[in-house]
Amino acid sequence: MLDMTLLWGSGSCPCWRAMIALEEKNLQGYNHKLLSFDKMEHKSQQVLDINPRGQTPSSRHPRDQQNRPFLHWVSLLQSQFQNQGNRLIPDAAEERALMYQRMFEGQSFYEKLNNVIYYDLFVPEEERHASALSRNKEALKAELGLWEAHLQKSPGSFLAGSSFSLADVVVFPTMAYLFRFGLSEGRYPKLGEYYALLKDRPSIKASWPPHWLENPKGHEALKDF
Amino acid sequence: MLDMTLLWGSGSCPCWRAMIALEEKNLQGYNHKLLSFDKMEHKSQQVLDINPRGQTPSSRHPRDQQNRPFLHWVSLLQSQFQNQGNRLIPDAAEERALMYQRMFEGQSFYEKLNNVIYYDLFVPEEERHASALSRNKEALKAELGLWEAHLQKSPGSFLAGSSFSLADVVVFPTMAYLFRFGLSEGRYPKLGEYYALLKDRPSIKASWPPHWLENPKGHEALKDF
Repeated sequence: MLDMTLLWGSGSCPCWRAMIALEEKNLQGYNHKLLSFDKMEHKSQQVLDINPRGQTPSSRHPRDQQNRPFLHWVSLLQSQFQNQGNRLIPDAAEERALMYQRMFEGQSFYEKLNNVIYYDLFVPEEERHASALSRNKEALKAELGLWEAHLQKSPGSFLAGSSFSLADVVVFPTMAYLFRFGLSEGRYPKLGEYYALLKDRPSIKASWPPHWLENPKGHEALKDF
Repeated sequence: MLDMTLLWGSGSCPCWRAMIALEEKNLQGYNHKLLSFDKMEHKSQQVLDINPRGQTPSSRHPRDQQNRPFLHWVSLLQSQFQNQGNRLIPDAAEERALMYQRMFEGQSFYEKLNNVIYYDLFVPEEERHASALSRNKEALKAELGLWEAHLQKSPGSFLAGSSFSLADVVVFPTMAYLFRFGLSEGRYPKLGEYYALLKDRPSIKASWPPHWLENPKGHEALKDF
C-alpha cells in the first residue's frame, strides 16, 4: 500500500489526474480526504503546509515532508513502481516526445476551458465584459479545433499514439468537462470518439467525480459550440 | 549542420528557449529568419503553415513537413544529438522529475509576468480595470516568492539541481525579463544570484535578444515589486 495521504476535491481536474495515475499504477487503498471547495478547505493550513500554492491535489510522503506537485510526484511514482500497472511513459522517443508536448498543451487547453465555463467565478462582476467572454469563447473554439486535429493525426487512439500515457491522464479530465458542459460530439467527432473510448476505462470510472455521479445531468454552456 | 529553418522574434521567450537549447547542443549555423512582431509576421502564412497556433518559434525539418512545437522538438533534438553538447535532461530520476515539474511551473510564471508587463497589450482599453491589474501584480508577487523558495531549496545552483537542464532553458528568459523590467535583486536575492550566474553563460549570451543589445536600458514596471 502507498504510504501517502491525498487531499482532493471532487471535479478538480488536477486531482482527477492524480487519481487516474494512481489507479493506472494499481495503487488503490491509499489514505485520502475529500475537501470541500465551497468551504475553501483547499486554502486551509493543512493544504498550505504541503502545497504553498494552496491547490489540490496535495499529497505528502510522511518520510520526506516535502510537497510533490503533480508531475514531480508522478515521475517518482513511476520510478518507484515502474513495473507495476501501466507504464504511462512510452519507451519510444517519438511517442515520449509527443506525450510531453501534449501535456504542456493540455495546460493551455484546461485554462481556455476554465476561461469560458468559469468566467463569472474568476472575474469579479464589475470587471466582466461581454466582449472579453466572447474572445475567450473564440479562443476555446480555436483550441478545440487543434485537439480535433491532434487526434486526427495521432498514429493511435490515444493522444501520444497507440498506448494510454500521461498525456491522456492530464487531458482526459478536460475532455470530460467539455462533454459534461454540452459539447456536441457531432461537431467534434474525434473528441467525441476519444471521450467514448476513455470514459469507461477502469482507472477513469473508478475516479469519476463523486458529485457528477450524484448529479449526472451536466450544464449547457458549450451546447452551441 | 542542422537541416532546419527557425522563424523567430527578438525577445520572444519561447524563441529564446529554442535558441538556448540549440546553443547548448552545439547546433549553431542553422538557417533562421527574424520576424517582426510589429508587422505581425508571426501570423503570416509562412508561420501558420508550420504552426497552426501562429506562434514563434516555428521550425520545420524539410524531411517531414510537420510542425515541431518546443518540447516535442527538443526531445527529438535530444534523441538525435544525445551525446553532443549538454545533455539537458538529467539522468537521475529525482532531478529529472524536478526538471519537468519546474518546466510546467515555468509556464505559469511566464503567464503571470505577461499579465503584468503586457496588461495593456493583452486587454483592450475599454476592458481595463485597475483592480484587475492590481490582482495580477499580487499573483506575480506570490509567484516570485515561490521561485525564490524553489532556488533556496534547490540542491544545486540550477532549477533542477546541480546541472543546467531544460528547466533552466525554459525559465531563464522569464527571469531575464524580470530584471530588464527593474526587479530588485536586493528583495529577491536568490533570483538575483540565479540571473547573475546564468546571464553570461555562452548559450545565453549568444542568443541574447538583439533589440535588448541595441537598447540595453530596460523598463521600470517591476521596480517597486
